[in-house]
Amino acid sequence: MNGVPATTAIPYGGDYNPEQWPEEVWDADHRLFGKAGIDTLTVGVFTWSLLQPAPDTYDFTVLDRIVDRAAAAGRRIVLATGTAALPPWLAKAHPEVNRTDFEGRRHGYGQRHNFCPSSPAYRRLSTTLAGRIAERYADHPALLAWHINNEYGGACYCGLCAEAFRGWLREKYGSLDALNDAWWTTFWSHRYTDWSEIEPPSALTEHWRGPNHTAFQGITLDYRRFTTDALLGCFVAEKEAVRAHSPHTPVTTNFMGMYRPLDYHRWAPHLDFASWDSYPPLDAPPTWPALAHDLMRGLKGGAPFWLMEQTPSTTACRDVNPLRRPGELRLASWQAVAHGADAVLYFQMRASRGACEKYHGAVIGHAGRDDTRVFRDVAGLGQELGRVGGVTLGARTPARTALLFDWDSWWALEMSDGPSRLVRYQDVVHSYYRAARTAGADVDVVPVTADLSAYDVVLAPLLHLVKGDLAARLEAVAERGGTVVTTYLSGRGDEHDRAFLTDVPGPLGPLMGVRVDEWDSRAAEWTNPVDFGDLRSPARLVFELVVPQGAEPVATYTTDFYAGTPAVTRNRFGERGGEGWYVATQLDDAGTDRVVRQVLSRHGLIGPYAEVAGVETATRVTPDGTRLLFLLNHGSGEVELPVHESATDLLTGKAYAPGEPLALDPLGVCVLRLA
Amino acid sequence: MNGVPATTAIPYGGDYNPEQWPEEVWDADHRLFGKAGIDTLTVGVFTWSLLQPAPDTYDFTVLDRIVDRAAAAGRRIVLATGTAALPPWLAKAHPEVNRTDFEGRRHGYGQRHNFCPSSPAYRRLSTTLAGRIAERYADHPALLAWHINNEYGGACYCGLCAEAFRGWLREKYGSLDALNDAWWTTFWSHRYTDWSEIEPPSALTEHWRGPNHTAFQGITLDYRRFTTDALLGCFVAEKEAVRAHSPHTPVTTNFMGMYRPLDYHRWAPHLDFASWDSYPPLDAPPTWPALAHDLMRGLKGGAPFWLMEQTPSTTACRDVNPLRRPGELRLASWQAVAHGADAVLYFQMRASRGACEKYHGAVIGHAGRDDTRVFRDVAGLGQELGRVGGVTLGARTPARTALLFDWDSWWALEMSDGPSRLVRYQDVVHSYYRAARTAGADVDVVPVTADLSAYDVVLAPLLHLVKGDLAARLEAVAERGGTVVTTYLSGRGDEHDRAFLTDVPGPLGPLMGVRVDEWDSRAAEWTNPVDFGDLRSPARLVFELVVPQGAEPVATYTTDFYAGTPAVTRNRFGERGGEGWYVATQLDDAGTDRVVRQVLSRHGLIGPYAEVAGVETATRVTPDGTRLLFLLNHGSGEVELPVHESATDLLTGKAYAPGEPLALDPLGVCVLRLA
Amino acid sequence: MNGVPATTAIPYGGDYNPEQWPEEVWDADHRLFGKAGIDTLTVGVFTWSLLQPAPDTYDFTVLDRIVDRAAAAGRRIVLATGTAALPPWLAKAHPEVNRTDFEGRRHGYGQRHNFCPSSPAYRRLSTTLAGRIAERYADHPALLAWHINNEYGGACYCGLCAEAFRGWLREKYGSLDALNDAWWTTFWSHRYTDWSEIEPPSALTEHWRGPNHTAFQGITLDYRRFTTDALLGCFVAEKEAVRAHSPHTPVTTNFMGMYRPLDYHRWAPHLDFASWDSYPPLDAPPTWPALAHDLMRGLKGGAPFWLMEQTPSTTACRDVNPLRRPGELRLASWQAVAHGADAVLYFQMRASRGACEKYHGAVIGHAGRDDTRVFRDVAGLGQELGRVGGVTLGARTPARTALLFDWDSWWALEMSDGPSRLVRYQDVVHSYYRAARTAGADVDVVPVTADLSAYDVVLAPLLHLVKGDLAARLEAVAERGGTVVTTYLSGRGDEHDRAFLTDVPGPLGPLMGVRVDEWDSRAAEWTNPVDFGDLRSPARLVFELVVPQGAEPVATYTTDFYAGTPAVTRNRFGERGGEGWYVATQLDDAGTDRVVRQVLSRHGLIGPYAEVAGVETATRVTPDGTRLLFLLNHGSGEVELPVHESATDLLTGKAYAPGEPLALDPLGVCVLRLA
Repeated sequence: MNGVPATTAIPYGGDYNPEQWPEEVWDADHRLFGKAGIDTLTVGVFTWSLLQPAPDTYDFTVLDRIVDRAAAAGRRIVLATGTAALPPWLAKAHPEVNRTDFEGRRHGYGQRHNFCPSSPAYRRLSTTLAGRIAERYADHPALLAWHINNEYGGACYCGLCAEAFRGWLREKYGSLDALNDAWWTTFWSHRYTDWSEIEPPSALTEHWRGPNHTAFQGITLDYRRFTTDALLGCFVAEKEAVRAHSPHTPVTTNFMGMYRPLDYHRWAPHLDFASWDSYPPLDAPPTWPALAHDLMRGLKGGAPFWLMEQTPSTTACRDVNPLRRPGELRLASWQAVAHGADAVLYFQMRASRGACEKYHGAVIGHAGRDDTRVFRDVAGLGQELGRVGGVTLGARTPARTALLFDWDSWWALEMSDGPSRLVRYQDVVHSYYRAARTAGADVDVVPVTADLSAYDVVLAPLLHLVKGDLAARLEAVAERGGTVVTTYLSGRGDEHDRAFLTDVPGPLGPLMGVRVDEWDSRAAEWTNPVDFGDLRSPARLVFELVVPQGAEPVATYTTDFYAGTPAVTRNRFGERGGEGWYVATQLDDAGTDRVVRQVLSRHGLIGPYAEVAGVETATRVTPDGTRLLFLLNHGSGEVELPVHESATDLLTGKAYAPGEPLALDPLGVCVLRLA
Repeated sequence: MNGVPATTAIPYGGDYNPEQWPEEVWDADHRLFGKAGIDTLTVGVFTWSLLQPAPDTYDFTVLDRIVDRAAAAGRRIVLATGTAALPPWLAKAHPEVNRTDFEGRRHGYGQRHNFCPSSPAYRRLSTTLAGRIAERYADHPALLAWHINNEYGGACYCGLCAEAFRGWLREKYGSLDALNDAWWTTFWSHRYTDWSEIEPPSALTEHWRGPNHTAFQGITLDYRRFTTDALLGCFVAEKEAVRAHSPHTPVTTNFMGMYRPLDYHRWAPHLDFASWDSYPPLDAPPTWPALAHDLMRGLKGGAPFWLMEQTPSTTACRDVNPLRRPGELRLASWQAVAHGADAVLYFQMRASRGACEKYHGAVIGHAGRDDTRVFRDVAGLGQELGRVGGVTLGARTPARTALLFDWDSWWALEMSDGPSRLVRYQDVVHSYYRAARTAGADVDVVPVTADLSAYDVVLAPLLHLVKGDLAARLEAVAERGGTVVTTYLSGRGDEHDRAFLTDVPGPLGPLMGVRVDEWDSRAAEWTNPVDFGDLRSPARLVFELVVPQGAEPVATYTTDFYAGTPAVTRNRFGERGGEGWYVATQLDDAGTDRVVRQVLSRHGLIGPYAEVAGVETATRVTPDGTRLLFLLNHGSGEVELPVHESATDLLTGKAYAPGEPLALDPLGVCVLRLA
Repeated sequence: MNGVPATTAIPYGGDYNPEQWPEEVWDADHRLFGKAGIDTLTVGVFTWSLLQPAPDTYDFTVLDRIVDRAAAAGRRIVLATGTAALPPWLAKAHPEVNRTDFEGRRHGYGQRHNFCPSSPAYRRLSTTLAGRIAERYADHPALLAWHINNEYGGACYCGLCAEAFRGWLREKYGSLDALNDAWWTTFWSHRYTDWSEIEPPSALTEHWRGPNHTAFQGITLDYRRFTTDALLGCFVAEKEAVRAHSPHTPVTTNFMGMYRPLDYHRWAPHLDFASWDSYPPLDAPPTWPALAHDLMRGLKGGAPFWLMEQTPSTTACRDVNPLRRPGELRLASWQAVAHGADAVLYFQMRASRGACEKYHGAVIGHAGRDDTRVFRDVAGLGQELGRVGGVTLGARTPARTALLFDWDSWWALEMSDGPSRLVRYQDVVHSYYRAARTAGADVDVVPVTADLSAYDVVLAPLLHLVKGDLAARLEAVAERGGTVVTTYLSGRGDEHDRAFLTDVPGPLGPLMGVRVDEWDSRAAEWTNPVDFGDLRSPARLVFELVVPQGAEPVATYTTDFYAGTPAVTRNRFGERGGEGWYVATQLDDAGTDRVVRQVLSRHGLIGPYAEVAGVETATRVTPDGTRLLFLLNHGSGEVELPVHESATDLLTGKAYAPGEPLALDPLGVCVLRLA
């Protein structure tokens, strides 16, 4: 059952909470769903207090009716286990299920997504509920997939978690000597002599100024890993409870893209398919959600994922919640498909009448109209998806460029005292991703443990920690003739964030052919222009002073006492023309583009429309070998492009001969089936 | 005893704390009071530890001497019950009287205004003290008014309050079903099955990022109402204890104007007269304190109030504490009288020698001089008030314009997730008030439950919640030929902040003749110019997209995909030329002026000096029908105005014939008795 | 044993933590130490868990080897007592040794420098450890000095501290009446009737918005004094334990310069010599560390101190950690010597492999190289210091200008409500220091209790509290013909921060010949130009309105209603031409320069290079009377100066005749032995 659920078209619909409404509203809902081409409903996400109103009472009456009503209308159900928000009686009976926060405060009942992952009561009751639901609905004909819990996240610092953490550590390290060595506890006289002395790293123990400031990175790294595993344990327990009754229906839980608290790479093997909720930050460029899509696709080795949530119009949780303007929803939805989504789903079908999400956009608003602009746009997209049918399902991305994404490096870098608190992992990773994507390269975003043998180019920005055999595998890329790009603040620490006792960049040194003698960091507004010959890129934040050990300079600093020394280098490696590129500072976009395009062009990976600003391309190859080329115009002007081979636009049916011009409206989308 | 205390002139004086000083200082004080025309002293505000040094010991020796000394000098006393700051022994003996804060932390002894309103010990001891004081001084000839406690405020989240909250809810809702429905608890599986499951909404339960971010608005709204009522309960209990001994002397407590935590409209019926402490924010325009004055006047149906505190010179509690420049104190004091104040009082008579208010301005400074600039200004004002005598006492404002002010809407709007956290209730309400006042209209600031039948114009900006029969009463205004103005984000929720299941603006829709199809929100710096024909107003923050349902456009958006759609509309309503105006976005001052002046001019409510920048006018009508016209020059230049009818300036005695020019100095004041 | 340790050259080296490393690394270290001229190592700072792995187990094996290894290499040891970071077992066995923070939260195990100073367990165990170490190493030939604990700081608010605070108060005040009077508790009904009612002033009691906002300054001032004394008690206890075994070796602890939490003047008598860790704030001008050096030198009456820590390259703990550029380390090190340092030491000798300081600069980096730029610079400085030898040791600064530095005033001023929270004590004190230093005056930075009889000029900016006989001693300076300069917000309070019941500036009034009638404060961006005749200085923040009582105006305000009134005054005082200068507002640098230079020039204290921007001069006189003139070029350009008397540069051996030009490179240093 590994893989997305089997469907014949792109599932379209989303989160639906009819339990909040009288049944006459349900009828109106389904009528509107029909108008909008909606065939898939995620139900039950927050129904625990409904399904289990008391410890010994389960009541499925309402859920039965919801599911049956959907089935009667010919719709499929993604069924949630409902365990993401506690019922009040549970919190009252078992106060320890409420988390203790980073500040050491035991919370009381409220909100959601805030159960202690180490609580035996939570584990018992949530798995029992999941099992009961599975038992009841496993064979329901409308059932399409299982949706465990919802948006797992956060962390707990209670005594139960402390005890579980100690067990996790004992399992990992075996001995306190190994742990003391890994965490380098001698530094401040923290040598543990008994496991019970270890406390979760919090504002009351190792931290100050918040989660990124820790006295010992080792313990904090391990607590994040432990938290990842503890929540994963909750997922796995529910999944097993479901599997006992439903051995074949695919199981997922909805992720949140680049979500820092949880290392999704540790979760990926346990999901049948990946799914995620896309709410890009305000003013994010289109490559931002694209990066997240590719990261999610990378979770299951490139297999398609589901877009489990997006808003049809606005969010509500931000200080400012701009509207998706006409065309933006369509464009974002096709972008998801272009990057591997096999479903397009919304949060939410009908706007809540009360509570904090009542202003979150919905397919159906409070007045229940079908003549709002938003409804019309949703319905239009539904019809379009319907027209395309199942052709995109199961397709994969034939990328020859990989970008390494590593939660451990993210965590370690951003919790580091020195050199600069201003370097943001996501921003830098995105800057390299953006450069590759706008150059027209398809990119796989993969974990550091991924098989790299299929790639010509590996981008490894801010590879702060180098773990296991990664350095050797990167060298192998170059030995095959490929190119590896890494940056400042890479190769600094091992898996415990202990410095390598060698020159920087540690195990990446031979491949890069440089050593870093020292490093400077400066305030955000300070720049050192980096000279590429015909381009000057104002570098910022961190400036490593590089001493070449075989590498040749590509660009140099132009000011300060290290003016003239290399800021970017390339190093011939191996016998087949492979190279290691080292970028010793934070370039601006133009500088990053220069580096990345130069590398991609070595391998013929520059796309045909790389010079057309705002137009994104993405390729998918279907199981039967059909090549699909997605053209997405993120710009506000019309664009005319030459078509390079015979193709048919799946959205319009229009056929193009090679060289024929193709017009893309502002925010326009074209899905070409290449001949 | 409803109404302000009976006096023959405007009471002048303020807070006086001689218990901090040896008695020789008292003599100096009274000598200076004489020089300054001070006849009224508020005493006893922070005397609990003095009056009751131990649980079983009361000692009135010092207070007796203070009151007698004042009486001997011919001064009247506003006597406080002294219960606003706990004595140390009480906090020690009953730790539960110290509040538990929003973060869940039980406080220890310190500060003031921080007793738990649900504490039985506090209730018992405070009412006992109030009763003892009343018993002793009820018949003292110097007694003018009772001053219960001081600046009630804040909130507590302790177990006692939780229990009291549950009782309050049970009283309000009767059943948990009703409560679950009101709070829309099904949304996140929060259906309560036992009253004991309900916890105060705090940082540890339903909130994140502070008091404005709640998962469930319903519980948070109710907790604010409960807090209002709980503190009101403390007031009422003290008042009853006082009344038992003093049935006729008016009772008040000093409010704080637009103070968000407490809904003063719930308190108003329980006060004999309203009083408040005016400390306008830094750089507040003169309409800001004016709005607060009018709000306070509105508490008792337009009856006069007392200005209980203001600083003669500077505050101390702010980061920056500018001096009131020469003339500003006088102008602000007369402005208070112009808006309904029947007393002008200061905090404080003599500067404290120690503790956090020692730099707060005082009539008498640390050196005890009578030749400081501040003392001279205070004395000058005292003489001027004395010259005017009692003519203003009891006068009322003949306003034909009402502005609705609604704490529930304020709370609901600002705790809302979406559309924009940047909209501030006070700012928007003030912007409409400012527009009306600078156009020369007298304005009553009234609760949404007020009788609106006397008004030609009702301004209802940000009327987020529409409760009870308000919509019908607003329609009745228009049916009589009047005009109602409301804005974006109005008509959104019922009294529980549940969305109306109709088009926006909910029950206001028929009167406004529009429906809002969707809404956009943007960052603070983003503007969409709204076109009025000859004026463009850069609108900001929230942009509702209006579909007229009978209304005609007054102004339109000029950019974005909704360019050309209405931003301001007017709707003919009823048979007598009444209108409903809808302003779908946040206009700048010029745009708001345009809307409000156009509306006021329909009803002939533009004042004679509406084109004279900086000059405020206000009208009061005395009990004998005398019309007083206050002219206040807030500008820094001299202004010459034509007098429109025969009048006499009460401050100078100068008589004016119609058409005669009247000169107002910078910061000048004129109180015209109209013929 | 009062005084720095006896050495024959400037000790050079720093913190060394070989216990973190295998012994083969130690050999490499000592080899590199030899290359760098390093002769002094501070060891044992964080070794508690190593030396005492269990309550009853002490193990000195590793420390023995470290000390012996150093001795074998001919290096001297500064031996720490290792008590600054708790071992885990101790925190587990005695949870009360972990502090309770300002928010009332009991911490768990973690970090360092966070033991409760009132904990009996900590006191017992730390003194036992110190005694054991002293017993073992007192007679070791490598021992040069004792280093108690490390960077004492912070505060605790636990029950043990509350109890200790009450005892401290009882000792200080004798009676509650005295305490109530000192704290002015009547103000808000806080009259204590039992010592047990007193709670530490924290976020849960008297404070809001943090440590600077207190309802009662008296209790908060006393708590800071108590905290100073409580931590001092820990130091003294350890020192006594050391002294029992080591009666002659000098004892110190490393201070942190202008460190607000602790009043180092209360500590100074208990140290044998002062030492401190210099990490100037980002972008601090060179006078900032200079001020700190002079403050540290002032602790022991002008005796030399040790620079115990500085970074050879970068810090790690800041958001941004710039590199010390080539030449900066050398310049900063010689600046320390110029101001009285008799040692130049680093944190740290070898970079930690793990934990939060692994990126902090070190003499030896992770790769162990001796060919890094930093190592070369360190080695170069070591050789230079070696060449100069012992000539600077024991020298003193012949200053005729004193600057008063007063922790009580700092605390009182910055915890004051009103007039302005924007006035920063350090910034203003620095501005006067900077003006004097850049004019070429040597300055002693002394406590308010210092003997002032040797000074011609006393600068007393922001002398907020005037305690004891200080006013009389300042008058004595003027009576001798000297000049005293003070500023706005001086002379405001007594030692309890109670206002003086006289005109401002209180006891300074007669000397200054002014009274302050009132004061204004304005937002940061607002300025009032102060007119000096040929100079206008834009004054900011606070504007006192001065009424001369004998003083003559030096400069006047130019705007606002007090335009034309004095902003700076001078007052002839006494028979010998002495003067009191009063600066009633915050001038900019040019204005402060004008005042200070005018005062210095009265006494012939303007230095020979006062007009040469960027060049700092400092004088030291050695025990044998040799005069040394340090010339330090902080500028980025070469400077040529005339030499004014016969001199020899100790660094180059070059001799100069009077009038001969002396060239200083950018960041250049010259140490002239004057003939």
